[in-house]
Amino acid sequence: MPSAESKWPKNALSLAEELISELSLMEKQFAAAESCTAGLVSDLIASIPGASKVFWGSFVTYTNDAKQKMLDVPEMQIREHGPVSRQVALAMAEGALKKSGAALALSVTGLAGPGGDDSAPVGTVWIGIAGWNNMDDILKNGFWSEAKVFSFSGNRNEVREAAAIAAVEEILARIKRK
Amino acid sequence: MPSAESKWPKNALSLAEELISELSLMEKQFAAAESCTAGLVSDLIASIPGASKVFWGSFVTYTNDAKQKMLDVPEMQIREHGPVSRQVALAMAEGALKKSGAALALSVTGLAGPGGDDSAPVGTVWIGIAGWNNMDDILKNGFWSEAKVFSFSGNRNEVREAAAIAAVEEILARIKRK
Repeated sequence: MPSAESKWPKNALSLAEELISELSLMEKQFAAAESCTAGLVSDLIASIPGASKVFWGSFVTYTNDAKQKMLDVPEMQIREHGPVSRQVALAMAEGALKKSGAALALSVTGLAGPGGDDSAPVGTVWIGIAGWNNMDDILKNGFWSEAKVFSFSGNRNEVREAAAIAAVEEILARIKRK
Repeated sequence: MPSAESKWPKNALSLAEELISELSLMEKQFAAAESCTAGLVSDLIASIPGASKVFWGSFVTYTNDAKQKMLDVPEMQIREHGPVSRQVALAMAEGALKKSGAALALSVTGLAGPGGDDSAPVGTVWIGIAGWNNMDDILKNGFWSEAKVFSFSGNRNEVREAAAIAAVEEILARIKRK
């Protein structure tokens, strides 16, 4: 594995490799929905050759308009709870799950800074995961979703990278727990 | 601008900053559709604070299924011309333009390797750009699109990074030409 050529730290590449190999064994794909990480989760996964077997794609919903148009996140939810909230993280993961049809979906929404807003302090990142209740169900009725909040320190890009690595760690832990 | 904190080379960050400032002046947004770069265009742009004013979001259509579901790229076009082709680059840019409603859209589809397929040699990257004929038209009827092919050398991640930087360079050149 030509990991050495990547700019990602070794531990991040190991997590990505492990996620790819676990999902390959399961013959499942996952999709992502990224706000503050803006493509970093996708890049971390795609930096490993063979990623396309298990990585369906990612909705980089950088703006609130993109969250609504790409993932059907209700405008009301964004307005009521703010884009960095449990509710929006769940809605993003659920939207990515439904739009992609992949077995699992991951979402990341946070405040990388500089400068925050009223809704959350800088470094706050919500990570959501969603999956079908029965992965083999062709109709794919019924899904579960969960979200967890993190608080990262560092500058804008350090927060974004830490969030991307945590997201891969979270979905990997969820797969192993099953 | 805390560019120094980013892992991107200085020239790439300068291009991203210039694109953001040009689009800010025009009060326009752009959307991206990324295949081989898988989030790197988004990351390069989002590594600059203030990017959210002009960067709508990105469709990371890593798989052919994602190209169809996210961007309405016709399956037939992918089958006939291959995912790395002028036709698919144009369809991705046009899809991103229509789905986002942004003023401009950028697409990248290429073969980063290792290992190629029958359709194109490793390092081949098509970059597409699309825009509305009349940007101020509320109905946004009629659009133009263009695509250009590049051939990058280097390993998988070098090709992906070169493609992301070239994509930003292309859309910036297009804006300045107008």
